[in-house]
Amino acid sequence: MSLQLRSLVRKNGELELSLVPVAIPAPEPDEVVIRVEASPINPSDLGLLFGAADMSTARQSGTPDNPVVTASIPEGLMRSMAGRLDQSMPVGNEGAGVVVGAGAADEAQALLGRTVAVFGGAMYSQHRCIKTAQCLPLPEGATPAEGASCFVNPLTSLGMVETMRREGHTALVHTAAASNLGQMLNRICIADKVGLVNIVRTRQQEDLLRDLGASHVCNSSAPTFLRDLTEALVATGATLAFDAIGGGKLAGQILACMEAALTRSATEYSRYGSTTHKQVYIYGGLDTGPTVLNRGFGFAWGVGGWLLWPFLHKIGPAAAQKLRERVVAELKTTFASHYTKEISLAEALRLEEIAVYGRRATGEKYLINPNRGVAATDTPPR
Amino acid sequence: MSLQLRSLVRKNGELELSLVPVAIPAPEPDEVVIRVEASPINPSDLGLLFGAADMSTARQSGTPDNPVVTASIPEGLMRSMAGRLDQSMPVGNEGAGVVVGAGAADEAQALLGRTVAVFGGAMYSQHRCIKTAQCLPLPEGATPAEGASCFVNPLTSLGMVETMRREGHTALVHTAAASNLGQMLNRICIADKVGLVNIVRTRQQEDLLRDLGASHVCNSSAPTFLRDLTEALVATGATLAFDAIGGGKLAGQILACMEAALTRSATEYSRYGSTTHKQVYIYGGLDTGPTVLNRGFGFAWGVGGWLLWPFLHKIGPAAAQKLRERVVAELKTTFASHYTKEISLAEALRLEEIAVYGRRATGEKYLINPNRGVAATDTPPR
Repeated sequence: MSLQLRSLVRKNGELELSLVPVAIPAPEPDEVVIRVEASPINPSDLGLLFGAADMSTARQSGTPDNPVVTASIPEGLMRSMAGRLDQSMPVGNEGAGVVVGAGAADEAQALLGRTVAVFGGAMYSQHRCIKTAQCLPLPEGATPAEGASCFVNPLTSLGMVETMRREGHTALVHTAAASNLGQMLNRICIADKVGLVNIVRTRQQEDLLRDLGASHVCNSSAPTFLRDLTEALVATGATLAFDAIGGGKLAGQILACMEAALTRSATEYSRYGSTTHKQVYIYGGLDTGPTVLNRGFGFAWGVGGWLLWPFLHKIGPAAAQKLRERVVAELKTTFASHYTKEISLAEALRLEEIAVYGRRATGEKYLINPNRGVAATDTPPR
Repeated sequence: MSLQLRSLVRKNGELELSLVPVAIPAPEPDEVVIRVEASPINPSDLGLLFGAADMSTARQSGTPDNPVVTASIPEGLMRSMAGRLDQSMPVGNEGAGVVVGAGAADEAQALLGRTVAVFGGAMYSQHRCIKTAQCLPLPEGATPAEGASCFVNPLTSLGMVETMRREGHTALVHTAAASNLGQMLNRICIADKVGLVNIVRTRQQEDLLRDLGASHVCNSSAPTFLRDLTEALVATGATLAFDAIGGGKLAGQILACMEAALTRSATEYSRYGSTTHKQVYIYGGLDTGPTVLNRGFGFAWGVGGWLLWPFLHKIGPAAAQKLRERVVAELKTTFASHYTKEISLAEALRLEEIAVYGRRATGEKYLINPNRGVAATDTPPR
């Protein structure tokens, strides 16, 4: 048997998180069984994990080895949960581990003993059975922890630069820029000589990014923020931003500063503003409050959602494969991730840990090792 | 001499509206002089006319024949006026009149005596000298008043349907739908069999549109608004909206109802929402307050600005010409405009009239006749 973390939203408005024993499936010929040893807790995982629950109401029950967490979902938000009611859902978008079982096909057998990364969902599990085609074999010597975040952050940051090129922009703005993803984007932009304006919220994050070689770092808590941002936009010519925050005034402030940067050199008054298109893509929801746009930036603007998977679908398999190859080639440099803590599945259900990783705070990145504390030989490979 | 309405923003934060006598220019060979007899006050004219002034501070001076209006611009808004400081600007995007003077070229001479419509700016003038290529000759028997609004509303409403087709949508939502523009769009959609969801703010507007044959009319003041809108979106499948209002929660409500309509039939839970792209284009600013988006509509969405002229530029001259030809062909039917009042240039500067047309209220559409009360023979043709 193997443990799997599950999230269940009940009709009565209660969220329940628990560990469920599941049988290790026998792989089909083209499948392998992975002993998962590293899976990050990304903001995109928290949505499925917590649903719309108010985690300040979280209560602990069960035993230390078999903990159960329950929390209440505000009544007004239950409508958004309609599609998942009473379904016990596995969690964890991506991760890495060692192939401990393989189907009869050559491609499957060839992976036995290899460390592979997977974007497959249900990665907060001790074992995961999956098609060989979904496995990304890691280079010799790479650990599961090093390969745990091979997909979401690396492909998202590469996707931002790719979107910039495809939509005719020449430089980028990024918010929550000190995150793992932001650090990757910073390294990509330095390597590719792409202008990048990093927006952060604290002085420490500012220092961190400057230490990492960032040329333009604007602190949204500083009284000079709008002026600093406008100057950075003049310097880079950025007319495209990716915003992880979503709520509040920031997206509109970015558009307004872009407009100010564009019209600074204008010689003729245009009541409709600059004709250059300014775009903000919201790709996260660190602030789930409303997006407030004070439209003082003309009519050549757009704000919209951006998601990695529709983007990869749009660019097609060949272009997506090129991005994946770059991730593997630069796994320990450009795409290196840092975690503040490694926890087991049971530890992931401790209230004191939830209080930390649930904050979605930059610099508090957790890695789940579902086999932490389990001797590798305890797991019967097939 | 000929009178022209002017708008001037002074460095000291004062707006001044006045009538300025200007010489009637001698036309170049390829130009004509038009005696302007009809020019609408569109919302898009008010931006240039009033600038950022707070018109509740408007004061009257001058004489009845030569009135002057002054108003104060809030200090915080002066930055947006930087491009037009101390420039006396003519106003009036579009209009129609009779050609009373012509240059030597055959095309110019051929227009002598014809009633033509023009989109050329500076139409709140008794005379307007303009290239023949910019003149749209009206059909025999059409009056200047009938041709005054040949461009902005007709081409905008046609542009909405064209945008819908080009961006892969199959039906439309329109706000402030009882306006002249909204009525045109309603007639186009009925003729072209395009599903249209009309959003209005009063019961009277609801009745008006239903009397005009509209199938889907939703009143945003009704307690059942969100439910009504969702049902209309299910019925039409509309995933594109054009919003004249801009401020407030409406754009976000439209996206949320579109998402609810799209996911109603979903069988599987998706934490990222529907993958169908939902778009709202803001093409006006009847509410200049902030746009507030309560993002509960997944990640496949966009909100952006939309303007007629960049759109016409994008589709190219041949496609734009086809739209213009349809306007002329259906001038008295599909593209008929209704005005509540015709006023002279001097009357346009009366505070009591400004109080009415400055409200940007649906159903209060004014037409300026710069030659009202002036005998046609008083104007020396050349």
